[in-house]
Amino acid sequence: MTTTTTLRLPSTVLSAPTAHRVLTGDRPTGSLHIGHYFGSLQNRVRLQNQGIDMFVLIADYQAITDRDTTGNIGETVREVVLDYLAVGLRPDETTIFAHSAVPALNQLMLPFLSLVSMSELSRNPTVKEEIDSSGRAGVSGLMLTYPVHQAADILFCDANLVPVGEDQLPHLELTRTIARRFNERYAPLFTPPEALLSTTPRLLGTDGTMKMSKSRGNAIPLAANSDETAALIRSATTDSNRRIEYDPQNRPAVSNLVMLAALCGGTTPEAVAEQVGDGGAAALKRLVTENVNEYFAPIRQRRREFAADPSIVGRILAEGNARAEEIADRRLAEVRRAMGTSY
Amino acid sequence: MTTTTTLRLPSTVLSAPTAHRVLTGDRPTGSLHIGHYFGSLQNRVRLQNQGIDMFVLIADYQAITDRDTTGNIGETVREVVLDYLAVGLRPDETTIFAHSAVPALNQLMLPFLSLVSMSELSRNPTVKEEIDSSGRAGVSGLMLTYPVHQAADILFCDANLVPVGEDQLPHLELTRTIARRFNERYAPLFTPPEALLSTTPRLLGTDGTMKMSKSRGNAIPLAANSDETAALIRSATTDSNRRIEYDPQNRPAVSNLVMLAALCGGTTPEAVAEQVGDGGAAALKRLVTENVNEYFAPIRQRRREFAADPSIVGRILAEGNARAEEIADRRLAEVRRAMGTSY
Repeated sequence: MTTTTTLRLPSTVLSAPTAHRVLTGDRPTGSLHIGHYFGSLQNRVRLQNQGIDMFVLIADYQAITDRDTTGNIGETVREVVLDYLAVGLRPDETTIFAHSAVPALNQLMLPFLSLVSMSELSRNPTVKEEIDSSGRAGVSGLMLTYPVHQAADILFCDANLVPVGEDQLPHLELTRTIARRFNERYAPLFTPPEALLSTTPRLLGTDGTMKMSKSRGNAIPLAANSDETAALIRSATTDSNRRIEYDPQNRPAVSNLVMLAALCGGTTPEAVAEQVGDGGAAALKRLVTENVNEYFAPIRQRRREFAADPSIVGRILAEGNARAEEIADRRLAEVRRAMGTSY
Repeated sequence: MTTTTTLRLPSTVLSAPTAHRVLTGDRPTGSLHIGHYFGSLQNRVRLQNQGIDMFVLIADYQAITDRDTTGNIGETVREVVLDYLAVGLRPDETTIFAHSAVPALNQLMLPFLSLVSMSELSRNPTVKEEIDSSGRAGVSGLMLTYPVHQAADILFCDANLVPVGEDQLPHLELTRTIARRFNERYAPLFTPPEALLSTTPRLLGTDGTMKMSKSRGNAIPLAANSDETAALIRSATTDSNRRIEYDPQNRPAVSNLVMLAALCGGTTPEAVAEQVGDGGAAALKRLVTENVNEYFAPIRQRRREFAADPSIVGRILAEGNARAEEIADRRLAEVRRAMGTSY
């Protein structure tokens, strides 16, 4: 049995894929890495290839929920779109668009904000965490309200499935609440979306910490070349036990490398551990490097080809934005009619 | 000397009126009454007639900051626009538009929310009052954030003058803060607006309470006819002292009627008090009724004429919305360029 990321996909999805629309996306705060790949990108491509209508959002306003400015966001967005293309998202099937380009979507914030209370907003776990770590003066109005903005993302395009991790379930619950309240108060326009819970193994950073993150320098970017990948894996944290085992509880850093080798090699972590045996960290790292570079070679090749076209990102976003705008304009018109505000 | 409402208009306004743009407006929660007239409508017409570029906003999303639904908002908006036309706002000179019809304006909420903190939002006096009276669970997300939405109203059209009462100065200060922070972080796009402080005498309700309000039944609607006006004034609160004086401190209800007679009669409250003398409340009320009906006769006549055209409100809003949208679209494009989010 190979290790793959799996989704608890409702059976109805598989029987009638075209009746489903999935909304997902990324904050453009850095180019994507192999943690994103196994955590979500791979699943998006699989859903797309099952014929499910995918909307992938570049959440550019969410990039400033917890930072002062947008920084070099144009370059980051370019990298992220190239990553999407490289892994196999096809713009003719999947709508790739940016928040800031769809005014009618953003307008939905206003009526939706009227449907939630101040205490519901501050009860959100992410917001609570931010308040705990930086105080109310350190939490921006956008951080406080972004779960409402997410509701607009999901409901504007009638997405009925949203891929989430367990930690994001409260956000999705707020979207469901907003949909229900709008329906009760005005007209039954919105379908409360369902969570598409992923059971993806979460990859740790190469330093053995919780999460790959570009800013911590513990992530292997999709765009890295073979030498950069080898160097990143060479410097990965391990332990002094020569015997390689898959024991995520007690040996998280080593087990993370084992898992990575398994994911890229199309095998199980147990088989990887068995294969390396007493070879120690050096042998494990050689195997990981080999498997990662081999697995990502075609993706990286495609990425280089796409990147050679300087206008491709602009074109893809222009098309995706236009498609999203058309849907959002129609949706907003329905919302305004339901609320009696089309005079 | 006659009693008129006066504005502390900066001298620059009078010397170069066309360089100024004023943003003002109303929450469409009921048709307008003579409290609105002497409190703001009269000044708007005066500013318009001085050649100042006026933007008058039907703040339809603000109607749901503190109520569950929009209710019969279409009918209310119609009444308010007819009130505007009746008092002399001219749609060819003054842009009359609705919030919900200008998506690019509403989108400005997003970047602006990133520029303020949660504690700045909850420190707003109106919001604090709401929290005190109904608790955080009773305060909607829209109530909490509407001062940011107001900043979008003002800054989208580059209004540099905003008519406010003293109590609204904190809101305007937040707009100024948002303008300054955006300019510092991205590009100097926004001019922090100035307050146009009104020294208008505030009319009390006919029951002598703080404020005319349709829902309390103590307001004289602009649209009322002579008989309705007479009935409302007949039932107004007075006191048992036959001698009529202008003494707002000690005899607020009687003094309010005196002021109303003076405002409508083009004279001073002292002259009115002198004229009625020992005639008592009945004589005062007769004079008030006469003056109000005489003053508002041409306004009411015009209102009936406008109301006879069933398509006029739709036409005026369509034109005003289109003008506002054009400006908002241009503004949003500048904002997106400055933030680096036009890809």
